[in-house]
Amino acid sequence: MVNTAVIVAAGLGSRLKERTTHQPKGFVEIDGLAIVERSIQQLIASGITHIVIGTGYLSAFYEELAGKYPQINCVHNKDYQDSGSMYTLYQMRDTLDSDFLLLESDLLYDPSGLKYLLHDSTQDIILASGTTHSNDEVYIEYDHNHFLVNMSKQLSVLKSADAELVGICKISIDTYKRMCQWSAEVFAQHWKWDYEQALVAVSKNKPLLVQKIEHYVWCEIDTEEHLVRAKQDIYPKLQHITEQSFPVRRNILLNPGPATTTDTVKLAQVIPDICPRETEFGELMKWTADQLTSFVAPIDQFTTVLFGGSGTAAVEAVLSSVVGEGKLLIISNGAYGERMAEIVGAYGIDHEVFASSPIMPLAFDEIEQVLQHNSNVFTHVAVVHHETTSGILNDIHKLGQLCARYNIDLIADAMSSYGAIPIDMLHSHISFLISSSNKNLQGMAGISFVIANRAKLQALQNHTPRNYYLNLYRQYEYFEKTGQMRFTPPVQTFYALKQAIIETQQEGIAERYQRYTHSWETLIAGLDQLELQYLVPLEHHSKIITTIQEPTIDGYDFDQMHDYLYRYGITIYPGKIGKLSSFRIANIGEIDHQDITYFLEKLGDYLNTIR
Amino acid sequence: MVNTAVIVAAGLGSRLKERTTHQPKGFVEIDGLAIVERSIQQLIASGITHIVIGTGYLSAFYEELAGKYPQINCVHNKDYQDSGSMYTLYQMRDTLDSDFLLLESDLLYDPSGLKYLLHDSTQDIILASGTTHSNDEVYIEYDHNHFLVNMSKQLSVLKSADAELVGICKISIDTYKRMCQWSAEVFAQHWKWDYEQALVAVSKNKPLLVQKIEHYVWCEIDTEEHLVRAKQDIYPKLQHITEQSFPVRRNILLNPGPATTTDTVKLAQVIPDICPRETEFGELMKWTADQLTSFVAPIDQFTTVLFGGSGTAAVEAVLSSVVGEGKLLIISNGAYGERMAEIVGAYGIDHEVFASSPIMPLAFDEIEQVLQHNSNVFTHVAVVHHETTSGILNDIHKLGQLCARYNIDLIADAMSSYGAIPIDMLHSHISFLISSSNKNLQGMAGISFVIANRAKLQALQNHTPRNYYLNLYRQYEYFEKTGQMRFTPPVQTFYALKQAIIETQQEGIAERYQRYTHSWETLIAGLDQLELQYLVPLEHHSKIITTIQEPTIDGYDFDQMHDYLYRYGITIYPGKIGKLSSFRIANIGEIDHQDITYFLEKLGDYLNTIR
Repeated sequence: MVNTAVIVAAGLGSRLKERTTHQPKGFVEIDGLAIVERSIQQLIASGITHIVIGTGYLSAFYEELAGKYPQINCVHNKDYQDSGSMYTLYQMRDTLDSDFLLLESDLLYDPSGLKYLLHDSTQDIILASGTTHSNDEVYIEYDHNHFLVNMSKQLSVLKSADAELVGICKISIDTYKRMCQWSAEVFAQHWKWDYEQALVAVSKNKPLLVQKIEHYVWCEIDTEEHLVRAKQDIYPKLQHITEQSFPVRRNILLNPGPATTTDTVKLAQVIPDICPRETEFGELMKWTADQLTSFVAPIDQFTTVLFGGSGTAAVEAVLSSVVGEGKLLIISNGAYGERMAEIVGAYGIDHEVFASSPIMPLAFDEIEQVLQHNSNVFTHVAVVHHETTSGILNDIHKLGQLCARYNIDLIADAMSSYGAIPIDMLHSHISFLISSSNKNLQGMAGISFVIANRAKLQALQNHTPRNYYLNLYRQYEYFEKTGQMRFTPPVQTFYALKQAIIETQQEGIAERYQRYTHSWETLIAGLDQLELQYLVPLEHHSKIITTIQEPTIDGYDFDQMHDYLYRYGITIYPGKIGKLSSFRIANIGEIDHQDITYFLEKLGDYLNTIR
Repeated sequence: MVNTAVIVAAGLGSRLKERTTHQPKGFVEIDGLAIVERSIQQLIASGITHIVIGTGYLSAFYEELAGKYPQINCVHNKDYQDSGSMYTLYQMRDTLDSDFLLLESDLLYDPSGLKYLLHDSTQDIILASGTTHSNDEVYIEYDHNHFLVNMSKQLSVLKSADAELVGICKISIDTYKRMCQWSAEVFAQHWKWDYEQALVAVSKNKPLLVQKIEHYVWCEIDTEEHLVRAKQDIYPKLQHITEQSFPVRRNILLNPGPATTTDTVKLAQVIPDICPRETEFGELMKWTADQLTSFVAPIDQFTTVLFGGSGTAAVEAVLSSVVGEGKLLIISNGAYGERMAEIVGAYGIDHEVFASSPIMPLAFDEIEQVLQHNSNVFTHVAVVHHETTSGILNDIHKLGQLCARYNIDLIADAMSSYGAIPIDMLHSHISFLISSSNKNLQGMAGISFVIANRAKLQALQNHTPRNYYLNLYRQYEYFEKTGQMRFTPPVQTFYALKQAIIETQQEGIAERYQRYTHSWETLIAGLDQLELQYLVPLEHHSKIITTIQEPTIDGYDFDQMHDYLYRYGITIYPGKIGKLSSFRIANIGEIDHQDITYFLEKLGDYLNTIR
């Protein structure tokens, strides 16, 4: 799994004259976006998680970009004026430790080329196109096996010249080390070597594949003439490719997950077939588990156990596996609290339910009394962080403090809070936290997971298993030992989840919650205007799911309202609170306040038809 | 969910003169394929499961096509010489009962247009393009809401003429009924009405959306001039679109599933976001369940219960749910038989294991003795149909007969046989059969299922549940009541499974097994040549997975061999039989004997490097 891209961007770009007097050439704009930023966005959309930029001339521009994209890490070549791209690449020898994509900073290109390289199991690939007659081309000579022989701007030194270097390569770490080894020797002469020369040198002893795509759409922008070609010829062609790839219709899902996803997450599912027992896939799962942990806990003390199944599967995995011979107190203020009781009921696990109002905050003094009156009886407390039934947010931090005082393990179902509401498992004393791929993470349904305090997890070793597929300890143990899931995982859903995690990291969890909050505030204001009542008092509200009382207008019908909105691509969801007539609006997923405004407009239109 | 397409193909095509003297115009070929057959293939690749062709002139051609594509059903318009396309469409009023795509038979078009219509939740859509200047255009006039006003070949009668009718529409069943109602009246005058006229008539009282894609690539072939344009302009453009959509790298997976899939199955995962509680998704699941049942049992007596999870999840669902207070005899000749024992062990379910050789057939007389000596003790027998460990095929028909004699329910784990080896649950007396989406069905991992005798399933009603997520009866009951899965299903995996089922139906299970058998025979012959030994005697072999003894050559190393082959896109799999050094080759998935030949070549190359 290649997760890293390197962009060499140290050069002066002096052939672009005054355009690069005040900025590096990667910052030349096409259609209002710097070419290097477009490239970075394309890399992130293709699943790249780390971007190392080799900077030199006016490096502050790239440093600023690194502030905007957490994936970026800059490595400065202070001698950029006297050196070539290989010297810049050489400066990264302490930073790079895995295979990577290598790109030049001045490229405009069809992003499909990135996936094409990433999906190929060949470790070293030099991307080539047919001839472009763009001036300043680097031609590639290759042998009958398509292995690199030579590269040069001078046709005279090459035996063939039907392929041009694009400036995007996939380089294995071994090849990179050989490039550096060669460089260390030749730097004695001067520093002005290009990475192409290092590749040619390495190719004498190691086959490097030249992958030629005859009509690949790309250009580099080194001169004013290039820039004209980029704007007049290449960019319109790229737009045409985008137009011809029919967009996936965008629906606005206001149900409480699965949520609206990005196109990049949708497309991440389309990958070459892979056996999930391969190391490459193991690495993907390990990466996924580590990132999921990192969102809420320190990775040295906590770990994530992955399951194929819905969120409920992971809830059952925890409840059936961790309580052992102890006793569980379930704090329930909605359907998902009740579900926990049903689960432990099926296994005959000793438990009690502390029932609380679905719209009012937990009475912590009462909970404490229950724990006090049953001192040393309860070993575990389970609670739903954000009760999807109503939209109430339970204070798990406060509950965790309480549990810690009584030496009780806290289990939190964070199904519809994780990924949006910041959580700190360590300081909130949460031992086990459960969520799934398809809510605030904005991935596809099919994966659920348990983030666990590693010591608490290891303590389960001698528990007698109550089940098989959903045994938490066995699942953990097997993955630790083999790097594989115990049972066939949903392969494609993992690739979607990877992309969803990348996008969550890109946005930031606190920032995602801000976006959700903005949507929610828009919703609440709109509901007030439409004179619709919501149930949970604003101060206890998750700001993620809003339960709304159904209007008492004659002619109102939930199904009709649903169908009316569905025609506009909007999906709403029925209520789930006992006998109360309600419906629910979730503002999660890849939607924003403008989508909520659009929904409110259409909701108003519907209400007008019956009012 | 639109599953049906209608092709109106009754016309004489007389403007194509001698080209249509001996064949209908849909059979005019471009690049060696009849245009209507290309259209049919595109429809199937887009998830269409039923194609109704309205035939007339030389209908035998279409009847023959129906023999090749089980999806096709022909409805003949015997008065084709005196009638128009609406009259042909009118003949289908007893056949059509759901929304459908309507296509003309003489179209060459970009298949993305189909998904574009299918993915839109608007029920009635008329696909339009910008002007083509192709001669014989039908222009569309629409209002500011993009609703149809009029259609005509005569510009003079229209207020606008910037949109052309492509000849692909999405028509709701309600609209179709209105079209028929209108027709019934006007047929009194004559029969030569076109469907366009009926649409215009309906649009007076019902909004019909005109969806215009400015640069949509398409043409109809009505004249010689059209044919020239199709060949010289349109077809090359379509090829260019295909070229520019980078192919997904094709890997040859020889592990025992997940298997190599088609590109159409991969792309079927990319759909607009949908809430799985929507009726539309419920219909997809119901359709899926019905088709899965139909492959192996009569749908009136059997039903399929779907789960989100791996195959093992469904095995656990059955074993934990059906045995009740009875006793289970597990017939085990490999790792998956042993797994069954571990599962029931975890639940404390009364059971015994009858262990058998992993490479020799079951001793039925001994099994019968066990049943006889324990008369009325065993209520259930469980067996793995095709033991993936070794590749041995257990005779479940014979075992079913035996169980029936002793009034015992047979549970068959058909994980890696279902979808390739024909099974008849009814006549083989199998009560519960288990499989998953990602083996011979050639779908994506994430869905497993239980096909059950409905009466046996209903008898579980009063069993005390032993678990929650994997409770077979509750899962069945909930789906029956609501048409929804109990817990969030893996949405996108279901769309892939739908396409995989369509392709399984298209190929046929017996025919798929023939393809697999051809691959397997190629494998066996190649192994003989390479002097490699396989374990299971040929006559007891599944012809699906072959366990091969590792060579005893110095320098042989499984991991090296694996990595050598992996570089060529071939994935092999380690063995799983006790202390025996073996590896496994599965010949399932979208691969054929040529891929096996390629693998044998590369395997030979590897062995030569160490020999």
